Amino acid sequence: MRKAAVQFFKALQDSICQSLEAVDSKEKFIEDLWSREDSKVMHGGGGRSRILKSGGVFEQGGVNFSEVFGTLPETMSHKLTGNTEEQAFFATGVSLVIHPFSPLIPTTHANFRYLEVGEHAWFGGGMDLTPYYLFEEDAIHFHQAIKNTCDSFDPEYYPRFKKWCDEYFYLPHRGETRGIGGLFFDYLGKDTPEALPDIFSFTRAIGETFTTAYIPIVEKHALSKFTSQQRDFQLLRRGRYVEFNLLYDRGTQFGLHTGGRTESILMSLPPLVRWEYCATIPPDSPESELIERLKNPKDWIR
Amino acid sequence: MRKAAVQFFKALQDSICQSLEAVDSKEKFIEDLWSREDSKVMHGGGGRSRILKSGGVFEQGGVNFSEVFGTLPETMSHKLTGNTEEQAFFATGVSLVIHPFSPLIPTTHANFRYLEVGEHAWFGGGMDLTPYYLFEEDAIHFHQAIKNTCDSFDPEYYPRFKKWCDEYFYLPHRGETRGIGGLFFDYLGKDTPEALPDIFSFTRAIGETFTTAYIPIVEKHALSKFTSQQRDFQLLRRGRYVEFNLLYDRGTQFGLHTGGRTESILMSLPPLVRWEYCATIPPDSPESELIERLKNPKDWIR
Repeated sequence: MRKAAVQFFKALQDSICQSLEAVDSKEKFIEDLWSREDSKVMHGGGGRSRILKSGGVFEQGGVNFSEVFGTLPETMSHKLTGNTEEQAFFATGVSLVIHPFSPLIPTTHANFRYLEVGEHAWFGGGMDLTPYYLFEEDAIHFHQAIKNTCDSFDPEYYPRFKKWCDEYFYLPHRGETRGIGGLFFDYLGKDTPEALPDIFSFTRAIGETFTTAYIPIVEKHALSKFTSQQRDFQLLRRGRYVEFNLLYDRGTQFGLHTGGRTESILMSLPPLVRWEYCATIPPDSPESELIERLKNPKDWIR
Repeated sequence: MRKAAVQFFKALQDSICQSLEAVDSKEKFIEDLWSREDSKVMHGGGGRSRILKSGGVFEQGGVNFSEVFGTLPETMSHKLTGNTEEQAFFATGVSLVIHPFSPLIPTTHANFRYLEVGEHAWFGGGMDLTPYYLFEEDAIHFHQAIKNTCDSFDPEYYPRFKKWCDEYFYLPHRGETRGIGGLFFDYLGKDTPEALPDIFSFTRAIGETFTTAYIPIVEKHALSKFTSQQRDFQLLRRGRYVEFNLLYDRGTQFGLHTGGRTESILMSLPPLVRWEYCATIPPDSPESELIERLKNPKDWIR
């Protein structure tokens, strides 16, 4: 399974980068190969980080593959499996965050991973959309693409993983979700090892759905003009993205606390961000409508 | 003691705001009064937040006074006093963060507070400097002003609180301190209630030292020109400031997790920030010298 997962995630990184480069049409991804030095928690492994900067469409985007292994310390071991002893672990996956220039194009994040800890093995992952200006048809397209793939495996997947996503990407101090969701799943197959091959098929299918779900939204708005006010609002909302990733995101915490590669982990942070004390949002504006939606997540598909 | 502490912190907020307005010479602080709604952890209280935006010297600055009281939940109660039961608490203090426009003027942070939890009472606080371009004489001036005040109370204070500051404002994932330090102290008087009056005198004196330590540095560089490359480097370094405050700062965590006022807590975040994957810093430049110093804190005063 390890070998198959690694092979798939590498191929997925390749195909996603190609699709993004095609729609950016100005810049290409630059690749950094890195390897883990010995540390207390991880014995080895490495990854290939791919970053696209100052593109035609994308201000900054990263699509990272990694494969790491070693020994998990007791606390983390306990958190993941309930077992209080140190355990061997293996983790591989693809993680991406794309920050377009235009406030009309949503930021997106996706992550697909395979983990082994002690006797346990499971898949996790998901993808979600963070718009600055909300086009309902984009939200429906994104969710529909995900639902189609989910439904071909299990009709309970989409409602369950959609809800999980809204719950996970939530900022309690703002009372808002990070974006308009998508799907999020974890520990799939952990207690049902006999189902792992099917779950791997699902993970492959959902990974391949990313470009179907996101690229058409990028293409639709790539040539649309935007105002400096819209750009300003985007920079302000990017602040919420930073707040979520640094205050709450488990992946970021896991990575930084286990001695992961800082630059690869924090490539998720937007290239330019603004904070303003009590920024004024006009009522009945597209900006206030977005915030209203983030405070009250809805079902995009009936 | 509560009444005296509240009175002092309010007066300190007034005098610091006046000094900062005088040196800014363009904008004044805007005041927001707020009061705590009932919540699980805090019964009441409130504060006055004062924010200066888009000034002549300061891009954004906040000087907040607050006075809150209620019941601490078990976990936080245990953390602060070792007592595992819910306990009544009272907290008052002043907290400030100043982000100048010019990369030649350091960002500064200061906090002075009085806490009561159950039977315990103590003072805490400190101030520190985060330069983007390091002028050794500024660092020495800042530390000397602090040391002078410390020495008039106890010759052991400065070395002890200087070290505590370097240890507290540290980003393990970057291997850097947040800035060039200052002082940091906490739990002063917690186990020696008979010493509280003296410690209150010390806190007053150190609070009043803030303007002596910081304002001359602002005045010195206020009219100096800077390049867009220097501004770019400042925005990049401000990213580290955000990383520290959201990932590690206990005050931010305490505030957000006890239902504090989000806008007042996060006024510490800089108005404009940049992140760049593996940003290039030329060797033997002022920029690389700063980073070298943050990786190896030094004694500014022998």
